[in-house]
Amino acid sequence: MRGHVVVFGELLLRLAAPGHELLLQSPSLTALFGGAEANVGVGLAHLGHTVRAVSTLPDNAIGRACAGELRRHGVGTDGIRYADGRMGLYFLSAGAVTRPSDVIYDRARSAFAETDPAAYDWQALLAGADWLHICGITPAVSPQAETAARAALQAAHALGLKISFDCNYRQKLWTARGGNAPAILRGFIEQCDLLFANERDAALLLDLDVDKLEEAARFPAAARALFDACPRLQTIATTVRSHHGVDQQDFYGKLATRHSLHQSRTHALAGIVDRIGSGDAYAAGLLHGLIRGWEPDRALSFAVAAAALKHSIPGDALPLPEADILAAQDAGGLDVRR
Amino acid sequence: MRGHVVVFGELLLRLAAPGHELLLQSPSLTALFGGAEANVGVGLAHLGHTVRAVSTLPDNAIGRACAGELRRHGVGTDGIRYADGRMGLYFLSAGAVTRPSDVIYDRARSAFAETDPAAYDWQALLAGADWLHICGITPAVSPQAETAARAALQAAHALGLKISFDCNYRQKLWTARGGNAPAILRGFIEQCDLLFANERDAALLLDLDVDKLEEAARFPAAARALFDACPRLQTIATTVRSHHGVDQQDFYGKLATRHSLHQSRTHALAGIVDRIGSGDAYAAGLLHGLIRGWEPDRALSFAVAAAALKHSIPGDALPLPEADILAAQDAGGLDVRR
Amino acid sequence: MRGHVVVFGELLLRLAAPGHELLLQSPSLTALFGGAEANVGVGLAHLGHTVRAVSTLPDNAIGRACAGELRRHGVGTDGIRYADGRMGLYFLSAGAVTRPSDVIYDRARSAFAETDPAAYDWQALLAGADWLHICGITPAVSPQAETAARAALQAAHALGLKISFDCNYRQKLWTARGGNAPAILRGFIEQCDLLFANERDAALLLDLDVDKLEEAARFPAAARALFDACPRLQTIATTVRSHHGVDQQDFYGKLATRHSLHQSRTHALAGIVDRIGSGDAYAAGLLHGLIRGWEPDRALSFAVAAAALKHSIPGDALPLPEADILAAQDAGGLDVRR
Amino acid sequence: MRGHVVVFGELLLRLAAPGHELLLQSPSLTALFGGAEANVGVGLAHLGHTVRAVSTLPDNAIGRACAGELRRHGVGTDGIRYADGRMGLYFLSAGAVTRPSDVIYDRARSAFAETDPAAYDWQALLAGADWLHICGITPAVSPQAETAARAALQAAHALGLKISFDCNYRQKLWTARGGNAPAILRGFIEQCDLLFANERDAALLLDLDVDKLEEAARFPAAARALFDACPRLQTIATTVRSHHGVDQQDFYGKLATRHSLHQSRTHALAGIVDRIGSGDAYAAGLLHGLIRGWEPDRALSFAVAAAALKHSIPGDALPLPEADILAAQDAGGLDVRR
Amino acid sequence: MRGHVVVFGELLLRLAAPGHELLLQSPSLTALFGGAEANVGVGLAHLGHTVRAVSTLPDNAIGRACAGELRRHGVGTDGIRYADGRMGLYFLSAGAVTRPSDVIYDRARSAFAETDPAAYDWQALLAGADWLHICGITPAVSPQAETAARAALQAAHALGLKISFDCNYRQKLWTARGGNAPAILRGFIEQCDLLFANERDAALLLDLDVDKLEEAARFPAAARALFDACPRLQTIATTVRSHHGVDQQDFYGKLATRHSLHQSRTHALAGIVDRIGSGDAYAAGLLHGLIRGWEPDRALSFAVAAAALKHSIPGDALPLPEADILAAQDAGGLDVRR
Amino acid sequence: MRGHVVVFGELLLRLAAPGHELLLQSPSLTALFGGAEANVGVGLAHLGHTVRAVSTLPDNAIGRACAGELRRHGVGTDGIRYADGRMGLYFLSAGAVTRPSDVIYDRARSAFAETDPAAYDWQALLAGADWLHICGITPAVSPQAETAARAALQAAHALGLKISFDCNYRQKLWTARGGNAPAILRGFIEQCDLLFANERDAALLLDLDVDKLEEAARFPAAARALFDACPRLQTIATTVRSHHGVDQQDFYGKLATRHSLHQSRTHALAGIVDRIGSGDAYAAGLLHGLIRGWEPDRALSFAVAAAALKHSIPGDALPLPEADILAAQDAGGLDVRR
Repeated sequence: MRGHVVVFGELLLRLAAPGHELLLQSPSLTALFGGAEANVGVGLAHLGHTVRAVSTLPDNAIGRACAGELRRHGVGTDGIRYADGRMGLYFLSAGAVTRPSDVIYDRARSAFAETDPAAYDWQALLAGADWLHICGITPAVSPQAETAARAALQAAHALGLKISFDCNYRQKLWTARGGNAPAILRGFIEQCDLLFANERDAALLLDLDVDKLEEAARFPAAARALFDACPRLQTIATTVRSHHGVDQQDFYGKLATRHSLHQSRTHALAGIVDRIGSGDAYAAGLLHGLIRGWEPDRALSFAVAAAALKHSIPGDALPLPEADILAAQDAGGLDVRR
Repeated sequence: MRGHVVVFGELLLRLAAPGHELLLQSPSLTALFGGAEANVGVGLAHLGHTVRAVSTLPDNAIGRACAGELRRHGVGTDGIRYADGRMGLYFLSAGAVTRPSDVIYDRARSAFAETDPAAYDWQALLAGADWLHICGITPAVSPQAETAARAALQAAHALGLKISFDCNYRQKLWTARGGNAPAILRGFIEQCDLLFANERDAALLLDLDVDKLEEAARFPAAARALFDACPRLQTIATTVRSHHGVDQQDFYGKLATRHSLHQSRTHALAGIVDRIGSGDAYAAGLLHGLIRGWEPDRALSFAVAAAALKHSIPGDALPLPEADILAAQDAGGLDVRR
Repeated sequence: MRGHVVVFGELLLRLAAPGHELLLQSPSLTALFGGAEANVGVGLAHLGHTVRAVSTLPDNAIGRACAGELRRHGVGTDGIRYADGRMGLYFLSAGAVTRPSDVIYDRARSAFAETDPAAYDWQALLAGADWLHICGITPAVSPQAETAARAALQAAHALGLKISFDCNYRQKLWTARGGNAPAILRGFIEQCDLLFANERDAALLLDLDVDKLEEAARFPAAARALFDACPRLQTIATTVRSHHGVDQQDFYGKLATRHSLHQSRTHALAGIVDRIGSGDAYAAGLLHGLIRGWEPDRALSFAVAAAALKHSIPGDALPLPEADILAAQDAGGLDVRR
Repeated sequence: MRGHVVVFGELLLRLAAPGHELLLQSPSLTALFGGAEANVGVGLAHLGHTVRAVSTLPDNAIGRACAGELRRHGVGTDGIRYADGRMGLYFLSAGAVTRPSDVIYDRARSAFAETDPAAYDWQALLAGADWLHICGITPAVSPQAETAARAALQAAHALGLKISFDCNYRQKLWTARGGNAPAILRGFIEQCDLLFANERDAALLLDLDVDKLEEAARFPAAARALFDACPRLQTIATTVRSHHGVDQQDFYGKLATRHSLHQSRTHALAGIVDRIGSGDAYAAGLLHGLIRGWEPDRALSFAVAAAALKHSIPGDALPLPEADILAAQDAGGLDVRR
Repeated sequence: MRGHVVVFGELLLRLAAPGHELLLQSPSLTALFGGAEANVGVGLAHLGHTVRAVSTLPDNAIGRACAGELRRHGVGTDGIRYADGRMGLYFLSAGAVTRPSDVIYDRARSAFAETDPAAYDWQALLAGADWLHICGITPAVSPQAETAARAALQAAHALGLKISFDCNYRQKLWTARGGNAPAILRGFIEQCDLLFANERDAALLLDLDVDKLEEAARFPAAARALFDACPRLQTIATTVRSHHGVDQQDFYGKLATRHSLHQSRTHALAGIVDRIGSGDAYAAGLLHGLIRGWEPDRALSFAVAAAALKHSIPGDALPLPEADILAAQDAGGLDVRR
Repeated sequence: MRGHVVVFGELLLRLAAPGHELLLQSPSLTALFGGAEANVGVGLAHLGHTVRAVSTLPDNAIGRACAGELRRHGVGTDGIRYADGRMGLYFLSAGAVTRPSDVIYDRARSAFAETDPAAYDWQALLAGADWLHICGITPAVSPQAETAARAALQAAHALGLKISFDCNYRQKLWTARGGNAPAILRGFIEQCDLLFANERDAALLLDLDVDKLEEAARFPAAARALFDACPRLQTIATTVRSHHGVDQQDFYGKLATRHSLHQSRTHALAGIVDRIGSGDAYAAGLLHGLIRGWEPDRALSFAVAAAALKHSIPGDALPLPEADILAAQDAGGLDVRR
């Protein structure tokens, strides 16, 4: 039960102020690579799956360092192209107390965004794979990336792969790019078997009004509407977080199948180290559960534990083996292991 | 509604053990400049006001670096004198859990403390300004500094500036300096329009006994007594913090005018990064509100949000624009902004 | 009332990932020395006692640096031998949120573990001392270390020293070493005046079944059984911690004499910096109280305050003077001291 | 003899691998601001001149941090515009031994490069100034920047300012931008009083063949040709470096007036810390000498000492007072000053 | 002309004092992975060859991090076994001025050293490869490692691979291990096509007396003797360094075939960053040249340039592409590339 | 032949900009303790001698950390007093290339400088000692320190100790303190057996004119005059350095007895790490040689090797064993020791 997953999307260089400093308060930045789909891939590779990253990187020392970082985590990089151009990047100042984390994107016109969709040979890139994972950032990056992602889905369909899609709706990117985001994203979710989306995403994509419903009724209603609109769709999952402070949150997950609704226990997250990528860790955890053939409750519990653990690790990804995540599913066991 | 504020006081070099180490546990110190009045000035400069710092710095690379740091924040330094002598400094080990932060002062006989009061030409230094801000540390530093501060207040009076004064009572400094602190400080508060002081300060300055009153009645009683004693005084403000742990506190503000009492909502501060300077951020926030002509409740809410945010940023000052503080006035909005 | 304490045990080099990183996520490790008994010794030295460390270190720059570190804290190192061989070490990744701290031991066949027990001249090493402190890690390290520890106890007995013993049961070490841990450890506790052990230790050593008892009844029952089995034993103490998260815990202590049971107030520990060595700080604090001749409640309160403070300081030891610990016994006093 | 100098050009964020690492060998970058003209401005501000930087920065935390850095050095930033867009940046791995330093530019389509030339009001920006300094990077950045620079020169001419221009020919930028570099640059040098250029620059701009001449005759011939082609030109200066290794070089300067040729002594540079910006320090030093009215030999000696000193300081600029540079003009005086 | 090279040997964790500090002068160590054969492999992978590392690593986070580091450089890790046991490591304090670098080995009884030779399936591990590279450290590590290496050579022979062997004679290891080093090493060199050895190695292995010869005659004589003793041997290469100081050296290479002698130009190495691994970079460079089919002079020039460049990069390996090494073959080209 | 040496003088905290930065270019300082006499003591302790430091430190965390650092090196601290007051400190920016290192002293009115000379009980402090070492900085610090040092010398005389004195003439300190430096220092050198002084010191102290002599004749003439003026004096030693650059120097030593003149070989120092304390390392090395009873040439060679090695180690002191210094006496042996 070892899957072969292809992830397609942009890779970014995260340039973060050290500790809880504001940007450039001192003359130093930590530099880490990530990317929504790649983060999922890294998580899956550490869980024992074969993962191939498909992307385009700049043909320079930075692009090569990025690919090296994926390989370090066991993700295959033979699906990565190198091209003239720049690396997409973002600047991050990590928040604290009552100050939220802040991101300044500098990813426009990256080598990835400007890649001709024809440059990807999806027959070859998807060969041997069982799953394709993409997220909503990719079509938001550029029309070329949107076209490439659509071609990937079509090829995956034709080759019989399962498809997972994470909405990851980013207003700023869509505003910059232009285009009808709901219509474009809807084209994607209609193709997928597994969807990561919450009620706000559903409201946007299906022009649904969930605010009139009680809080507890919103996700079920949204899931129902999504299942109705997307016949191929089998599973919808999302996470819920409430903040006591920037670094102190409660966190749980929800999952809907066509026949059932599931909710995980709540994880209390105190002293959060790095929240970025927790959604991707959740996706990796859930994909792992589905690939392993676990029941929804079990898969959801694992996915939420994975996402919760991500908050304890610097960087975008969750580089932990299955045993560590299983151990974190239940409360307890928090003392030093020695 | 852009103010022109002059701040007068000593600048210090903070030498802090890294992270939560004890002093010199490892052979490294972070070195940051600050000073109660300068911190207020930096906050105001980031809020769009014209700020001139008046002080005396040593005529060496350290003094010049300190002035450069003020300029970096947009504070004008043409009111700074350079003289032979040393930079006042303090060593800090930041506390954690149940260990309070600890300060070792090494500021005696600094270039500032030993400056002849006649060296400051207040007519020139206050030219064009609307406000003068001083705090109770300055007279505690040395008799010369006390005299200089008094001259500043007289000149400000004559030129029609408004005056704000922050009690900042520091027992250790007064003990070292000698002199009748209550009498000296009372001379200052009688001159000011805006006073930062709590019931303990009032008790000290007016020889008041507030302990017999119920907790809730103390600040109103103290404010009444201060207003009675100081006819020029229009506003008294203070902050209240309660500790669940060194880095976990609740925090709110109180404000009294001659006609009304105001209290802000309580901000829960978890995972505090740096508490030093939060009183100065509060002062900057309140001055901003008053300069903008805001109602007391609005100004207080802004000032408390500013002070709360300060706890999230390393260093003495709050270098954030108005929009960031407005956004932090209400609970919520704590997730990554991207 | 200044004691003269000899501590005997292995010294280790702790190699820890920086901050909350996983091991070797970035190419840097912090390197600190420690060791259960030495940590107790460092704590006692800072409390004003004369302390001699007895151990064997490798005869190279690492071993000499380790001894230097003990001297820096005021612990005497003339009882330390240098021999061919390696330094025991362990790798640590500090946990966070829901991820527990993790230790990888690499201490097998250290210079200490392989030392011929005859190499220690206990008559000389214990000369002038009042107390000998040893812990259960030492016999777990190797049969040679066990024999040496036994010889130390016999000599201490003969010389009239008081003896304290901390169970510190470490399954991994005993599994690696082999041998009948309960029998061996029981041999040690029968010799001591002061024992650090909880109900699980007692259950192991005396083959006791405490799980059938209510939670509150377990420690008293265990203490009773231990007192019955060990006529020399006068005091048994332990700590209790409950986790709200890896870095957020509640913490208190329990102490039994042959005539009384004592429990401290609970310290809320939020934002823990370094939990390692808190048991050793507890032992140092209690030994300090006993040496000073304090009543059990007073000694326990001091010991728990010491252990709580340890969580705020990086490194294995608690290098604070008595005044700082006394100040932390009660809640309050958590604001910046300046 | 205090000048008022306006510098116009792009500001960049330098992201450098720490120490002598390759890019992203470890996950950290030092982040420093610079820019050829701004570096000259910073040098001049530390030499006591009034300097105004004119540029366009992104309207975000990075742009504001950049302006703050200029202010820190005493450079006026009221001539800086903020606009939507990105900060130009470059990645640097500092070389060593036989490996040259390597730069990856990521500056295309910056807020500066895309600024409408009409956005600059040169009458206002040049008001009160004596000198305008620009370099050849600016027209290489974009046609818009070229037009803006040309407008600046025309306005400067009209207002009677002196003009200095540093060729700074960068092949990569011109290739990316397109356009007839020699013709464009020639348009600039015809306007200036002081030109920084060597024989290769002259050969490029005037289509001159200097290679047939002996080494020693090349610069004089180039200078003669430049003086003939540019009637306004009074001084031409350049530097010469020869490498014994990446961090070990010999360095001297040459200067030509219409009537004389000058050459400085050679400075041996061993253990170079940061070579970037040494040409700008040279320009600042020479401008300082000309503003002070020094003879060519004296000005050249000062400029070369400034440039040599720059190699000893991390970052783009030379933030030293005149006395430090005067002291470095002669060999000797290299022991600790205490 | 892309080779497929298998490298077999132990991987080590290098724990180095930061900068030029002595070991544990401050509480921090840099942690980098290396190993003589793996270093060669990393160099070859960056030169475009397919490389498989064969080794045994501890089955824990450290071992997995080590394999990840190899993958990051493009070295295949499917030939790496995980086993119980420890990682070999060494402590390094980098020298300076007149203080040589110092290594403390702590590699005894590593998982690699204690691996049963039968654990390696050489038929599978060498499948598809053209070259096997091993060095003299492997048999020095343990008798088991020696047996495994011998089996590797036999299998390589049988499968028609070329074999390269680097003497890397380490007295300390042989002393610790025991055994007849010359006889054992001679067994290895008789099997190889390419040998890295100098006259001292030859003297040791063949009991040769070269000291009576003039300096210049020693390597030719040694090569002659080695060719006579080892009929399969085609190429012998070595490097020569002379020290002006710890970080200032002259460096060149020598190469002998059965028919010719070659010597490279001398590279002046000033300001050396990290000398460790330069011999391995030399080996990688020479293997690259031989695989590409270059003439001896050309291959030697490339190998020496690679080794010289290694001195400029922190860490054991030379992660540079062919173009960078070609550019460094000749003197010149040392200024910033931008 | 193990000596017992008492060193008396002020201890300082060195606050240095990291790497080659200017002071406060970035917000971090390295913090190391030193002091001319203590540096000698640390060197001697590592060479196996018993050393007691006598000084006065502030009674706070900084003072205690300083004493801890001495103990770490094996220097006895029971002769150290704690008193109210401040720690003397200095700020350092390490030079490079053509920029000399720069020191800003902030040591006025330290706890040491203001100590009542009667506070030292020299009978007790010198008990058991063979040597007393003092330097010329101590009388320059304050009249109180001068008086204390004079009392120390008298007591040492009475108790039969040998006395060494290092002129260490510091103009800045004497100017600040006032007083007749030559007369005061002459009072000290008349008491000592071993003097560290060069011809400029002699010229100052004896009002000698050596400049008219040839370079080579100056030290012999100065030594002759010193021997004539100081009947107790047996040995005079000094060092000579010439600079090729700030971090590249040639270095040797000279020694005179009443009967002979000695000069060491010249050590080429390239890539100097930290020059501060090299004179103290020289003194420690020479004292070691005299205590061991070595001939002048042998002692001088050892002292110069010690001083040369000091340039390779960060911090004030030379913490190396005798074997490492012996190994550095001759050129060669500079390759990695492994």
